[in-house]
Amino acid sequence: MNKLIEIIKEASKLVTPDIEEEMNVKRMSELIISKVKEVSKESPYKPEVSLQGSLAKGTWIKGELDIDIFLSFPRNVDKSTFEKEGLDIGLKALSSYNPYLRYAEHPYVEALVDKYKVNVVPCYKVEKGNWLSAADRTPYHTEYIKNNLKEEQKLEVRLLKKFFKGIGAYGAEIKVQGFSGYVCEILILKFGNFINVLNYLSNMRKGDIISLGEINEEFVRSKFSTPIIILDPIDNLRNLGEAISYDKLALAILSARKFLADPSIKFFKEDGIFEFSQSILNNMVMVKFKHKERSEDILWGQLRKSVKALKKQIEIQGFKVFKYGVFSNNLDTSCFIFLLDSLNLNDFSLKRGPSVFSKENCDRFLAKNYESPLFWIGEDGNLYGLRKREKKDISSIIKSIIEKKSNGISKGIINELKESFQIIVGENIKGETWIKEEIIRFGGKNKLLFS
Amino acid sequence: MNKLIEIIKEASKLVTPDIEEEMNVKRMSELIISKVKEVSKESPYKPEVSLQGSLAKGTWIKGELDIDIFLSFPRNVDKSTFEKEGLDIGLKALSSYNPYLRYAEHPYVEALVDKYKVNVVPCYKVEKGNWLSAADRTPYHTEYIKNNLKEEQKLEVRLLKKFFKGIGAYGAEIKVQGFSGYVCEILILKFGNFINVLNYLSNMRKGDIISLGEINEEFVRSKFSTPIIILDPIDNLRNLGEAISYDKLALAILSARKFLADPSIKFFKEDGIFEFSQSILNNMVMVKFKHKERSEDILWGQLRKSVKALKKQIEIQGFKVFKYGVFSNNLDTSCFIFLLDSLNLNDFSLKRGPSVFSKENCDRFLAKNYESPLFWIGEDGNLYGLRKREKKDISSIIKSIIEKKSNGISKGIINELKESFQIIVGENIKGETWIKEEIIRFGGKNKLLFS
Repeated sequence: MNKLIEIIKEASKLVTPDIEEEMNVKRMSELIISKVKEVSKESPYKPEVSLQGSLAKGTWIKGELDIDIFLSFPRNVDKSTFEKEGLDIGLKALSSYNPYLRYAEHPYVEALVDKYKVNVVPCYKVEKGNWLSAADRTPYHTEYIKNNLKEEQKLEVRLLKKFFKGIGAYGAEIKVQGFSGYVCEILILKFGNFINVLNYLSNMRKGDIISLGEINEEFVRSKFSTPIIILDPIDNLRNLGEAISYDKLALAILSARKFLADPSIKFFKEDGIFEFSQSILNNMVMVKFKHKERSEDILWGQLRKSVKALKKQIEIQGFKVFKYGVFSNNLDTSCFIFLLDSLNLNDFSLKRGPSVFSKENCDRFLAKNYESPLFWIGEDGNLYGLRKREKKDISSIIKSIIEKKSNGISKGIINELKESFQIIVGENIKGETWIKEEIIRFGGKNKLLFS
Repeated sequence: MNKLIEIIKEASKLVTPDIEEEMNVKRMSELIISKVKEVSKESPYKPEVSLQGSLAKGTWIKGELDIDIFLSFPRNVDKSTFEKEGLDIGLKALSSYNPYLRYAEHPYVEALVDKYKVNVVPCYKVEKGNWLSAADRTPYHTEYIKNNLKEEQKLEVRLLKKFFKGIGAYGAEIKVQGFSGYVCEILILKFGNFINVLNYLSNMRKGDIISLGEINEEFVRSKFSTPIIILDPIDNLRNLGEAISYDKLALAILSARKFLADPSIKFFKEDGIFEFSQSILNNMVMVKFKHKERSEDILWGQLRKSVKALKKQIEIQGFKVFKYGVFSNNLDTSCFIFLLDSLNLNDFSLKRGPSVFSKENCDRFLAKNYESPLFWIGEDGNLYGLRKREKKDISSIIKSIIEKKSNGISKGIINELKESFQIIVGENIKGETWIKEEIIRFGGKNKLLFS
C-alpha cells in the first residue's frame, strides 16, 4: 500500500500543471477568446463565445492541453450557414496562427499556438435533448462538471486520464475507441477518486451500468448492450460506453488489476510499453496506400470495413490470420496489417465437391477441377479433390484480392487503394516513424501487462 | 449402344466358367462334401451337411470361387459346444489340406484345395427369424436364390459381381464395406439384368428402398436410414444396405454413370485403376505396427476407431488432414495413413484465452502461457496469445500423441501400437507388396472415374 501511495504521489507531480503553466495558459486563452469574441460580434448571428473542455473544467494534464473555444449559434441558423459562419469566424480569429480545417461531424478550425492546439468549434445553443449538432452537448458537459467536480477531484481526474493515456486507452476518437476525458470525469464523480475507479474496474462485471442519477435498469438494458454502460448525466438516452471498444475496456480492466497488484510509474508514461521482437516480422504483411483527406469518422469506417473484408478473403485462401489492424496518419496514408501463421501457403488445397447423388453437380465439379492431382469419394458420399495452388505467397494473393471485383473492400477507398497500394512483407516492413510506432504497438508484447 | 453390347459380350467371357472348370469344381466339391458328411456322422449332434454360397447358386465368377460347406446343428446345442464341434469336424474333414482357423462372429475352418478356398462353417438349423448365429440365414439365402434366380440371370449376377470387383466395391466384409454377392443377386432379381442395375444406380436417389416384396414404407423408414436400403427377402427386419458404406455406394453410382456413358472392359478388371503420382508422398505419413491375429470384425473396429482418434489429435495440433485410411493384412500388420496439407507445422499457434472479466482464468492463462512471444486483447474482450511450437514435424507429433494417455486410440490395440509403431514419412513410405498396393489405392487417382 505504501508503494501505491508513493507511485500516486509521483504521478501527481507528473500530471499537475505548475503555476507558470496555469498562468501562461490562462493568459493565452483569454487573449484568443477576446479575439474570437471580437470577430463574432461582426457576425450577423452573433454567436456566444465560451471556453470549453478540460481547460474550462480545470482537468487538463500538465503540458497536454487543447484550448476549446465554442461558438454557440442560435438554433434558427440553417446547418450550411452555421458551418460556413463557424469556419469564417475561426479562420479570421486565428489568422495569425496559420489556422487549418478539421472535420468531425461538422468542420471546425484548428491552429497551433505555442505548443497548444486551439480549436474553434461551432455549436447550437439548444435546450437539453434538442440537439442539432454533435457539439451541442459540450457546454452542458462543461457546466455539469464545473458544478459537481470538487476542487480536490481535479487531480483524481488528471491521474485517471494520464493512466488511460499511459496504457493506450485514452480518447473517444474512432481511431482509439477508448475513454474520453468526459468519461474520466464521470468515473471520478461516481467513484470519488482514482484508486476507487481502478478498484471498480478490477472487479467490474460485464454489462455493469454506471449512472450518476436514479435509473430504470430494465429500460436501460432494453436500450443498451455494451460491456460497460455509462449514462451521460445530461442526456440519459446516451450511453458513453458505446464509444469504448471491448478491447480498450478489457485493456483498462487488466491494467487496473496489474497496477493495483504491482504499482509502477510506468503506467503513467506512454513510451516503452511494447517489447518488439524483430522475428515477428516474419509473420507480418502490410498493405500501405495513399488517399485523400476526409473526416476521421468516415475514414476509419472505411478502413475498418476494408481490413475485415481483406482478412476474410485472406482466410478463404487458406491463411490463418492471428491478428489484424489498421494504421493511419488520418491524412493521406493508411496501412492494413496482418499477423499470419505463415507468409506462404502449402502446395495443395482441399475442395469439397457435391454429393454423388447430384449428377449434374458432380459433372460440373469434375469438369471444373479437371486438373486436380487427386480426386476421391468421402465417407459422406461427397466428391473431394486436391487443387494445386497457383499462388502461394501472401503478396501475390493480396494483390489478386485487391484486383478482384467483389472483395468487400469499402467503395469509398477501393480506387485509391488499387492505384497506390504497396504490399510489404517480413523484414521489409519499415516506414515513416509513425508507421514504425504503430507496428511496435501492433506486434509488440505489452510489458505493463504481460511480463 | 453397340459398344456397350460388345463390352458386355467381352465381359461375359471373362466371368463365365468354362465347362472344364464347372466339371472340376463339381467333382472337387462333391469329394469334400462326402468327407465332411463322413466326419459329421460320427458327431453326437449329427449336423446336416450342405453346399452353400455362389457354387450352390451357380453365380461364381470364372476362376474365383469359395467352396462353402455348412454344418447345420440342432438348436439345442449350446454355443460353445457348437463352436468346438464345428471346428473339430472341419479340421478333421480337411485334415489332408493343412486347414486353419478363421474368425468371424464365430470361428470356422478354412483350407486351400488347389486354388480354391474351402470353408467349413457351423450354423444352427432354425426357423426363419429365430436366428442363433450369424451364419443361420445362409441356407435360407441359398434356397431363395436357387428358387428365384432364372438360369439366364446367373450371367447377369456374374457380370454385376465382376463389375463391383473391378471398381473395388465388392464384398460385405468390414474391410471393404461394399456389395456382397447376395446383394448382387437381390439387385439382379429386382431389376432383371446387369444393365438395368447400372441404370438404376446411375439415377438412384438417396434413401431409396429396394425390396422384392410388399413393404410398409413408413415402417421401413422408421427403422433404417442408410443412403440405400436393401431389404433381405428372407428377413424383412434386416437392411443389407447397413453393410455398404456411403463411399462404396457412391463409388458404385459414379462408376455406373461413367460405364454407361463410356463403356470399357477396364471396369471388369481390377488392376491399373489408380494413377499414382510419386510426389503425393510428400504429403503423406504412415504409422505401421504389428499386432496379434483376431477376428476381422474386431480388428477393423479397433483400427477404424483408432485412425479417427489419431486424425482428430493431428488436427488439434494444427495439421489439415485431407484424407486418412487404414491398411491391414488382417493378420499381424496394420497401418494408419494420412494425407496432409504439409508434413510440417508453422512456427506459432494461436491460443484463445478467457474473457477479461474472469480474473482467475486470466491469471491462469497468463501464468500458463508465460513464455508466449505475444499476447493481446481481442475485439471480443478475450485474451489471445501466440505459442511457439516445440514440435513441428508430423513424426514427432504423432509419436507424442501415441505416447499420450488419453488419445482415443482403441484400448484393444494401443499397447501393441505403442510397442511396435514405426512412423514413415514422405518418400520413405514403402513396404511389402500389399502395403504398396494399398498406398496406390489410397493416394492414387481413379482412372476409371477421374480422367
